Order: sequence, then C-alpha cells, then structure tokens
Amino acid sequence: MRLRNIQGSRDVIAQSPLVVHEPRQYRDEWKEAFGNDHPIRIEVGMGKGKFIYQLARLNPQINYIGIEKYSSVLLRALQKMEDEPLPNLLFIRMDAEEISEVFGREEVDRIYLNFSDPWPKDRYAKRRLPSREFLKRYDSILKKDGVLEFKTDNRELFDFALLELPFAGWEIVSVTYDLHHDEEMMAGNIMTEYEERFSAQGNPICKYIIKR
Amino acid sequence: MRLRNIQGSRDVIAQSPLVVHEPRQYRDEWKEAFGNDHPIRIEVGMGKGKFIYQLARLNPQINYIGIEKYSSVLLRALQKMEDEPLPNLLFIRMDAEEISEVFGREEVDRIYLNFSDPWPKDRYAKRRLPSREFLKRYDSILKKDGVLEFKTDNRELFDFALLELPFAGWEIVSVTYDLHHDEEMMAGNIMTEYEERFSAQGNPICKYIIKR
Repeated sequence: MRLRNIQGSRDVIAQSPLVVHEPRQYRDEWKEAFGNDHPIRIEVGMGKGKFIYQLARLNPQINYIGIEKYSSVLLRALQKMEDEPLPNLLFIRMDAEEISEVFGREEVDRIYLNFSDPWPKDRYAKRRLPSREFLKRYDSILKKDGVLEFKTDNRELFDFALLELPFAGWEIVSVTYDLHHDEEMMAGNIMTEYEERFSAQGNPICKYIIKR
Repeated sequence: MRLRNIQGSRDVIAQSPLVVHEPRQYRDEWKEAFGNDHPIRIEVGMGKGKFIYQLARLNPQINYIGIEKYSSVLLRALQKMEDEPLPNLLFIRMDAEEISEVFGREEVDRIYLNFSDPWPKDRYAKRRLPSREFLKRYDSILKKDGVLEFKTDNRELFDFALLELPFAGWEIVSVTYDLHHDEEMMAGNIMTEYEERFSAQGNPICKYIIKR
C-alpha cells in the first residue's frame, strides 16, 4: 500500500461512529458493540475496506471488524461507508500486534488476511501477518473450529506463510496457487482492490485456508 | 540404497529368530513379542541397521523394531547382530505402507526416518516416507505425545517434507538445516552409515523432530 498522508484524516476518524476508539474496552464483550451475539469475523490489514464491506453487505447475520494501521487508508474505507452504512461493520485503527489485547479468547469466528505487506527483508519476518508470531496471536483469539483465510499474489510471502504453519501448529484445510482457476476455492470469492488489479495483469493469486 | 540381490537372503531371513515373520499377529500386542511393556520405537526404512542397533544397545529399557523392505538389505542388518544379539531389537521385512496393519493405535512411542528414498519424480511423491500419506499412517500408530525424527542430506526431500506437515496436521518441535553444526540438536546424535559418508564429504544434514 503506497501511503499518502491525508491532511486531517486522524480528525475524521476520531469523530466517526464507525470506528471503535477504545477497542480494549470491548475485549470479551464485542457483542455489546454490535448489540447482538452474531459471530465476529475480522480482517487484519483491511486497506481501503472493499473486501470486508462487501462481505458485510452480503452477510447481515455476521459481524465484521476491519483492522487497519494507517489513518489515511482507514479514511478511505470510511468514505466508502458514507453512502450505505452497515450495522454489522466496524473499524479499528490499530497495530495488528495488539490484537490479543483487543479480542478475548475464542472471541473471533474467522480471520482474513488479504495481500499483506511482504516485509521482504529477513530481519522483518516477524512483522509479516502470516508469520508464526502472528499465528500465535490469532491462535489466542480464534474459536476452536475457526479458520483463517489468506490471499496474496506474492509467491515468496506465500511460500514463507506455508512454512510457518507447522511451527505454530496450524493445519491446511485447502490451498491453491492459482485461485482464479480453482473452481472449488473460487466459489463465493470476493475480490480486494489489489486482487482485481493483479489478476487483471494475469498474476496468479495464492490462497490458503487454515485451522488449528 | 543400491541393491544387489544376495542369493539366499530370503531363506536366511525366514530362519532368523530376530525377524518377526507374521507381524500382523502382534498388532496391539507387541509387548508380547518382547516379553515386557517397555516403550516401542521403530525405524522405517532402516537399511543396514547401524542406527537402530546402536540405539538399542544404548537403551536396553526401550524396545526397537527395524523395518526394511528389501531382503538383501535386511540380511546385512542380521549379520551385524550375529556377534552381539540384543533382546530389545527385532526386525520386520515389509513395505512401510502396511505399517498401520502391523501396529495398533498409539502402540509406538517414537518413529525414526533416516535418509529415506527421495523418489524425486513428482508422480511418486506418495511413496516418500515423510509424505502426507505416510504421516497419516504414522498418526494412527504413534502415541499422543510421541514424536517422529527425520534426517536427510537431500534438501529437496527435506523442503518437501516440511511443506507436507500442515497438510497432515503435524507440528515442528525442532528443525535444523545443518545438524552437525547445531549443538542442541546434535546432542546424543547417532550417525547412520549414510550420514557418516555424506557428512564426511561436507554435505549438511537436515533434521526435524515433529509431533501432532
């Protein structure tokens, strides 16, 4: 994600009712934020939010939380929501490293990672969202039978992600190196902004679904 | 393993009291074969048996079973035993694919794979002893807290083996890409015939220890 600092984005976010400003206060009580006890699914690093917005629109009986570190990017997601706000979609501006301080044990039903930053230098491997360090964090918040879905067009990141699984004790449910030519895994696929652009260029998209 | 058909090896094996000839009969009752209830550890594809023989000599309170498909190779292991037979070491001549017909659920305490045949062609991937298909077979016979140890100098086979783990739901306990320069994992290491030869040539040995 190329970042442009958008003037005043922090102010807009601070005033938005769609953003949860003190997310730690909802730990183990996220159903109160939504006013119901529907399952909660999160996207870590949601970018401009197209993916999670569409998911939320298609599945009103499921609650979604989009997590994004950068204000300027989160702002774009908020702007998208203005025309048609959804009661089952909230946002958090935070660093994903704090995720287990914000969600309680088994509070999350499903986790989505889409086109995460590859952090290509080895010394930053721990910052990659599918790293063993992050898998351990997800482990603590995901329901026993919950799954994590990860998509990327970066083959190096995907190979890394696969090799991290046995270090964190996760198991593959399904995997493809070319999502858009995999009929079974493509069923119900929702494209992110990146995915549309990259797949239009003919780049294959890798995806796995994993569980503990 | 280069194979030479040794004349009469089947006959020698058929008459050896060190070889269990009808191993299926001992399923769930291997302690009767040894006359005690010590833990049972197996080496799948033991070759000439140097590794498991040394293990058995060092650990008289553990029972070992060496499994080898080829008569000519098993014969060499038997010859090694002639000078100093060990009460805690038995052999089976069988195809590893039948392993779950020979051992009962959780009957095995530990599994060793050493320098297994890489079966380099993709279409034979299922025959590789650390493949997901074999991991499922091991799964059914290994104790809940049991581990599997695998050593090889073949980096392609090792990379393949690592990637199979999340498909079978196994987890890495420890791993090294250069066993002989890894102090912690080298502790108590017993070299196979292959390992002595390959490491003398300066080739690094890869090893993992895995659990479910």
